[in-house]
Amino acid sequence: MLSHVHAVILAGGSGTRFWPASRRLLPKQFLPLAPQTDEPLIAATLRRIESLVPAERVWVATGASLIDATAAMLPRVARSHLLGEPVARNTAPCIGWAAAVIARADPQAIVAVLPADQHIGDEDAFRQVLERALETAHEGWLTTIGIVPTRPETGYGYIEVGEPIAEGVSVARRFVEKPDRERAQAYVAGSRHLWNAGMFFFRASDMRAAIAQHLPGLAAGLDRIDQAALRGEEARSLADVFPSLPAISIDHGVMEKAQRIAVVAGSFGWNDVGSWEVAWEMAGHDAHGNAVPQATVAIDATNNLVKDLSRRAPPKRWTLLGVHDLVIVETEDAVLVMPRARAQDVRAVVDALRKRGETDVL
Amino acid sequence: MLSHVHAVILAGGSGTRFWPASRRLLPKQFLPLAPQTDEPLIAATLRRIESLVPAERVWVATGASLIDATAAMLPRVARSHLLGEPVARNTAPCIGWAAAVIARADPQAIVAVLPADQHIGDEDAFRQVLERALETAHEGWLTTIGIVPTRPETGYGYIEVGEPIAEGVSVARRFVEKPDRERAQAYVAGSRHLWNAGMFFFRASDMRAAIAQHLPGLAAGLDRIDQAALRGEEARSLADVFPSLPAISIDHGVMEKAQRIAVVAGSFGWNDVGSWEVAWEMAGHDAHGNAVPQATVAIDATNNLVKDLSRRAPPKRWTLLGVHDLVIVETEDAVLVMPRARAQDVRAVVDALRKRGETDVL
Repeated sequence: MLSHVHAVILAGGSGTRFWPASRRLLPKQFLPLAPQTDEPLIAATLRRIESLVPAERVWVATGASLIDATAAMLPRVARSHLLGEPVARNTAPCIGWAAAVIARADPQAIVAVLPADQHIGDEDAFRQVLERALETAHEGWLTTIGIVPTRPETGYGYIEVGEPIAEGVSVARRFVEKPDRERAQAYVAGSRHLWNAGMFFFRASDMRAAIAQHLPGLAAGLDRIDQAALRGEEARSLADVFPSLPAISIDHGVMEKAQRIAVVAGSFGWNDVGSWEVAWEMAGHDAHGNAVPQATVAIDATNNLVKDLSRRAPPKRWTLLGVHDLVIVETEDAVLVMPRARAQDVRAVVDALRKRGETDVL
Repeated sequence: MLSHVHAVILAGGSGTRFWPASRRLLPKQFLPLAPQTDEPLIAATLRRIESLVPAERVWVATGASLIDATAAMLPRVARSHLLGEPVARNTAPCIGWAAAVIARADPQAIVAVLPADQHIGDEDAFRQVLERALETAHEGWLTTIGIVPTRPETGYGYIEVGEPIAEGVSVARRFVEKPDRERAQAYVAGSRHLWNAGMFFFRASDMRAAIAQHLPGLAAGLDRIDQAALRGEEARSLADVFPSLPAISIDHGVMEKAQRIAVVAGSFGWNDVGSWEVAWEMAGHDAHGNAVPQATVAIDATNNLVKDLSRRAPPKRWTLLGVHDLVIVETEDAVLVMPRARAQDVRAVVDALRKRGETDVL
């Protein structure tokens, strides 16, 4: 196994798409959204990689306001490894800063950047791909994992595969924005495009060089923070500098522009758990497509998701009569009812609550 | 005002149509289903008539298992006036027994029989009709109130109006079963049919005679109970005799067959509060037809009823996104979700729960 491997778990999030389960201070990665488990997504993310990256080389990049909750959920990760961004500036500043912090601790570091809020169905297959990606990064490639698409999804970016480098590894020829339906169908049919899953692998030194070349403004800001850190003044510098960093994604800012970008193809039941609709798809269903609490009475009711997070004991008796394709989520203090097809619009509810000043339920 | 007037409030009920708000031990009449009030329907029934019938001449016929709850809800009615049927045998045995009990206390009694679970919009108009019905009963007619229909309702029985007797009072020519749509439309257009609202007025002696003539088996049973009561053994006799009485309605058993049946036409915002659909109709709505808790967020959501009876403080924040014509009722221990159009089928849910033995929520 490679030495000097570190992992950065990206664990920001505003807590809107899974409202009312998710909140400002309890975004998606803290929720047990995977089927048949009470394990929060972020805990699963850590557990999955621990055989490759021990907890003492795991780092978590998150919002400063989420540090305490993250610490509580990942007790094996040292507090000093929880990197709290004072403001969210998209992934390039976040990954750049994390890479700089890790490089100070381990100049030879190879870094795996992994989102905290995904579900992986086949963990063994995932770890094999992960090892391949780390080996590729070790060779000096900025590396990503591309998921073999299973449907013409228009909600993801795609990566066009170029010349092969090694078994299962290719040059990433092009990063493609979310396509329309027709193009997505062509991508799936053509077998030359993979889903961009937001996982990145690189030597810390390579990422630093790529940022210096393609995002010089970001590089300068990160240098200032680095200098301050060497003087023991990182916290103050962060608060000063971070808000001024360019808010750009690592995809747009670096991966689309840099040389030597590799992609490792993966097929391991990846799911981005993007909405309550996806939560319904992932969940176990009864014979009528309902994913509902045990002992629910469902009469002429099909393909509904009921998520009761209100922690009542004994749980409420849910009864559905003649309803179809609904999502119902109940927490201690709020209830959301919508058709599954509106799952992308939960933000509108959160926005309405925010406008009313009802931050107690956000 | 007439003397010797007594009222019998009919307050049985199995608690199915308004489940989960209603329960076996908390049927519909105990619920505050009228708009803009927390007054249970049965309390409103008593309050409405108190200027005509003082509480010491009010009697309540209910199931034996509901006596305690009824007593708690109607503290001004003496415990001895709460008549508990050991088993439900429909309205003829119930009314016949109540009439006999009242006749023992007051042989000249004029009895008004009033369902406990109705809503009356115009209470002054109601009391005027009530007085007219009592006066008609005082003249020796078995009298009922017929509601002037406001729509071709197929869920009610109708009363065909015959020759006039006095102002607003006519001979009741015929009791008609629930009609089909076409006939109901003809009834409304013809202006000769009124809704049967289940209210009856009679001298106790007249009812006794009518039962003796048309339901001799019931009359014999009631005589046995009466004899036992004179020996101070009513309770034991009730338990023996009541289950053997014929289970028949007063409409079928007596009113459809007897002579001298009168009907008083009434128009006073009568509502039988028959289902959650009706509860939605009666309730105050916002501009989008939603009858929902205060502070509910409703986006692209119309004509829904949300009834939150879970007594949480502060109340849960309800949010509806893109849903229409739903009924959602939540209590401490259960939730029901259905389209308004399925409100007649709540019994199916209750039956399913009963089959599973989940009597804790029934």
